[in-house]
Amino acid sequence: MNFNMKEAIEILERTPQALEFFLSGISDRWFHCNEGEGTWNATEVIDHLIELEDDNWIPRLEFILQEGESKPFPSFDRYSHLNESSTIEQKLLKFKTLRTQNLTKLKIHIETELNLELTGIHPRLGVVKLRELLSTWVVHDLAHIAQILRVMAGRYRADVGPWIEYLGILKK
Amino acid sequence: MNFNMKEAIEILERTPQALEFFLSGISDRWFHCNEGEGTWNATEVIDHLIELEDDNWIPRLEFILQEGESKPFPSFDRYSHLNESSTIEQKLLKFKTLRTQNLTKLKIHIETELNLELTGIHPRLGVVKLRELLSTWVVHDLAHIAQILRVMAGRYRADVGPWIEYLGILKK
Repeated sequence: MNFNMKEAIEILERTPQALEFFLSGISDRWFHCNEGEGTWNATEVIDHLIELEDDNWIPRLEFILQEGESKPFPSFDRYSHLNESSTIEQKLLKFKTLRTQNLTKLKIHIETELNLELTGIHPRLGVVKLRELLSTWVVHDLAHIAQILRVMAGRYRADVGPWIEYLGILKK
Repeated sequence: MNFNMKEAIEILERTPQALEFFLSGISDRWFHCNEGEGTWNATEVIDHLIELEDDNWIPRLEFILQEGESKPFPSFDRYSHLNESSTIEQKLLKFKTLRTQNLTKLKIHIETELNLELTGIHPRLGVVKLRELLSTWVVHDLAHIAQILRVMAGRYRADVGPWIEYLGILKK
């Protein structure tokens, strides 16, 4: 196992600003492309990150602390965010604000000793550990930043010509 | 075709600082993991980006302008960077400095009118256009940032427990 709280927080606290830095001020067209019907564009990925800051990571951590395995996590609607309307800059600010609040909550829990082996019940996956929830939070950040980059890269699929052979990111 | 010079430069000028923001100050262990023998860790990916800033993008653009299809691009050693030794912060600074210099050169070429349909000879891929070279530069940035994130995510493959089912980034 590699999970380490300090190292995990290093990533979690950098994600919103790295996204803000990369996406603020770029042309709208970078946000409108997706990977085909039923897939998300970059804006929708940010909405999804906001949604999980609101409903998932810390609420589930606190649910484990309070309920343990007595009942499964409440379900959440992973598509509810798709109704949101605001600019990308507003969305990135909202994500950063929520993330800061959640890391503050996490640090308060850490100070009062957080047992990473505590368990809860995921409605589909069954028994899960606090350590697994926190590891997933980090990997989820990395996965969705990578997804945004892949979706953006896809805009130039036809433009790279024969170089497509060397660009695995365009083959997904 | 989607290539647009202004939009391409938006990405190219953000990459070094976004990487710097995300990677500066995080624990060394994030840089030492790779995806198995013969694969790169995050540091080696930065080395590769530095290498191509030095030897590839603008040198090839200028080679097309000077030589056209009269001879193929000189070859470059894509592994030469693996001998480099300096801290990640030094590498990120070097990448940022080279990128700034290269975008200045690109903008000078744009001001004197750059015909994106000009062609050169890639030693393996054959005839390539200037527009394809510049599109590839952008996609290459996005691909290698995504690679760094994927390599980092891989550290927590065993830690996420049953959530691995939802994390496609860990399946590559």
